[in-house]
Amino acid sequence: MASPPIITFSSDFGSSGPYVGAVKGAILQICPQARIVDISHEISSHNILEAAFNLACSYSYFPAGTIHLAVVDPGVGSERRGIVVATDRYRFVGPDNGLFTMIYRREKVRQVVSIESERHCRETVSATFHGRDVFGPAAAWLASGLEPDRLGPEVTDWRQLPLTLLQREGSGRIGGVVLQVDRFGNVITSVHDRELRDLLGRQPSLVEFQAGGRRIGRHCRTYAEAPAGELVYLKGSSGYYEIAISEGSAAQIVGLRVGDPVRVTVR
Amino acid sequence: MASPPIITFSSDFGSSGPYVGAVKGAILQICPQARIVDISHEISSHNILEAAFNLACSYSYFPAGTIHLAVVDPGVGSERRGIVVATDRYRFVGPDNGLFTMIYRREKVRQVVSIESERHCRETVSATFHGRDVFGPAAAWLASGLEPDRLGPEVTDWRQLPLTLLQREGSGRIGGVVLQVDRFGNVITSVHDRELRDLLGRQPSLVEFQAGGRRIGRHCRTYAEAPAGELVYLKGSSGYYEIAISEGSAAQIVGLRVGDPVRVTVR
Amino acid sequence: MASPPIITFSSDFGSSGPYVGAVKGAILQICPQARIVDISHEISSHNILEAAFNLACSYSYFPAGTIHLAVVDPGVGSERRGIVVATDRYRFVGPDNGLFTMIYRREKVRQVVSIESERHCRETVSATFHGRDVFGPAAAWLASGLEPDRLGPEVTDWRQLPLTLLQREGSGRIGGVVLQVDRFGNVITSVHDRELRDLLGRQPSLVEFQAGGRRIGRHCRTYAEAPAGELVYLKGSSGYYEIAISEGSAAQIVGLRVGDPVRVTVR
Repeated sequence: MASPPIITFSSDFGSSGPYVGAVKGAILQICPQARIVDISHEISSHNILEAAFNLACSYSYFPAGTIHLAVVDPGVGSERRGIVVATDRYRFVGPDNGLFTMIYRREKVRQVVSIESERHCRETVSATFHGRDVFGPAAAWLASGLEPDRLGPEVTDWRQLPLTLLQREGSGRIGGVVLQVDRFGNVITSVHDRELRDLLGRQPSLVEFQAGGRRIGRHCRTYAEAPAGELVYLKGSSGYYEIAISEGSAAQIVGLRVGDPVRVTVR
Repeated sequence: MASPPIITFSSDFGSSGPYVGAVKGAILQICPQARIVDISHEISSHNILEAAFNLACSYSYFPAGTIHLAVVDPGVGSERRGIVVATDRYRFVGPDNGLFTMIYRREKVRQVVSIESERHCRETVSATFHGRDVFGPAAAWLASGLEPDRLGPEVTDWRQLPLTLLQREGSGRIGGVVLQVDRFGNVITSVHDRELRDLLGRQPSLVEFQAGGRRIGRHCRTYAEAPAGELVYLKGSSGYYEIAISEGSAAQIVGLRVGDPVRVTVR
Repeated sequence: MASPPIITFSSDFGSSGPYVGAVKGAILQICPQARIVDISHEISSHNILEAAFNLACSYSYFPAGTIHLAVVDPGVGSERRGIVVATDRYRFVGPDNGLFTMIYRREKVRQVVSIESERHCRETVSATFHGRDVFGPAAAWLASGLEPDRLGPEVTDWRQLPLTLLQREGSGRIGGVVLQVDRFGNVITSVHDRELRDLLGRQPSLVEFQAGGRRIGRHCRTYAEAPAGELVYLKGSSGYYEIAISEGSAAQIVGLRVGDPVRVTVR
């Protein structure tokens, strides 16, 4: 017997209000057998970059067929459209505001549709809560077996995040940004192992990171290897390089926040 | 095949302790096939009003047959009783302390029973944790098919919140309270579209809100429509009017907290 | 029909990053029918004591057969090993760093194995995220029916927390520590009803607690019984004695944190 369909759910709704529950109800009313798996609802308000990063670090571990619902939607009520992105293994549902930027870079996109079918939304669509009235229902219909193109017409001009996640800045210097500060204070950068190799066309040797006016030249394989009190860089578990410090908060020491620039020197 | 029963779960237990997990275990021990859906466990400690509001904004989106478990229980260990409220579509389980006030106003109540059957509680009922020992098990028994009246005798004197959520204060002036401040700083008031119409016996035109010494006269349909830096009011996605400000926290600006009075002028 | 297997999940990953979602995905990829029940992901970073306590207060309420996955893992990447602890009713999966100390004290341990089978881990095991690459998959394999000893060799030298949770300090004086401060400010101590009786070989009468330079002599059965503004002690719902104050934070008043010493005088 097939396992019930999985819908992962990420948002910036926070854990303390009724919004997350309302979306889950709207999903289960359409597809009662769906299994909803929370990724995070504590993404910073309206922070599309953080949401895109969270999704990038988690989507690929789920079984093929999983539907990923992500709602960080500062433009709700404006003209921004909703989309379904279908790849070989997954479907992604959410606003077309750059949330799926990392997906476009990593996965082969088979089809993107604009969600326009009113009969697959809630009967009354509010102006301020498309998570409950449009995106949740769309994910539930997909989980029920509906093909994406029943939700609306195919589109090709989807939006990406405006910032450059990785770029050459000169001989052996690559610019990136801070994608996330985790609760341990580790600074996760957009310098991604495989993407860096693709950008350079070869496997580089890293020399040092520069961030917040500091040079971080010590590389470690694990947090446990880091000498006490010294800033180090290491390759995180999702392929992104991080700046960390043993038993402390690297983010506080280097004074970095999401979106701030970092640079890496390579050989 | 019928989908497994859904139990939603709201509380003020917080996400950082063992309480939420213990309740889920107690439910699954009685009804292993139950699907527990978290609404929120970050309701402010002992804040019955906030819990009632959270439930009011989420319960109705779930499929018929859903059991809603809500535990915000400052009176645990005192004489307050536990109840099951049965409506046409749902059952609600929790302490009889006003948590279900909005349910009584909106739904046709079919039966309310006082939870007294000891053999449907845990073998030892602690003095301080009825969520795990009484309410969770009661919800699980209902999910297993038990009729509410097997849990105890019918009662008719259930408790409501002591505060007035909506009242006439003079010609064209209606008083309400702040029900919630969400994580975006939006101030959600008890002025509810349909309830306001019911109170006045007609569909009113709203003129302005007064809150925290300010007059808010600008109406918007969506957050995106709000001019930068100006306080506005809009009808939220659950029918409650909110006070908001573009790219800022309205709650900070007007200095309002849950339970504070607001007023609306209508024509 | 058998209910799908339950895997509970506790960690210090926090609710705001992608880590929790990645572990859930890794579990579901191996055992798509598993039902993952979150205990808490807000355990303080690297706080093994708090994690052990959280587990101690929740594991026993779950149905027999439940698999408890717990990941608080400051030693990830070092030589610390991963283990499966099998008891009569449950299996526990996590790092061998003392997380399961309370389990060893309360349950009859049938078998402990060291997780070493590479073919039951993710294909590439990162140096920093064994929750996703080792422990989550191990829990999923157990949920799929694998016997623990297929994951690695049996071991007998598992680690316990270095601190003494309960010890005699003289005639009628017993020392303990603070295990947890809950969100209501209640101070939960390691003085556990049944363990205290086992230590003394008789059922004692408690006289007073000493904590943070204060003597707390008033006993209450419930929070509701506590006189306003007075520190009291009471037996919590899991058998641990707590120090509390009506409508206030006992932790703030006595200035206590997790790991701090407390003492109880008994007759």
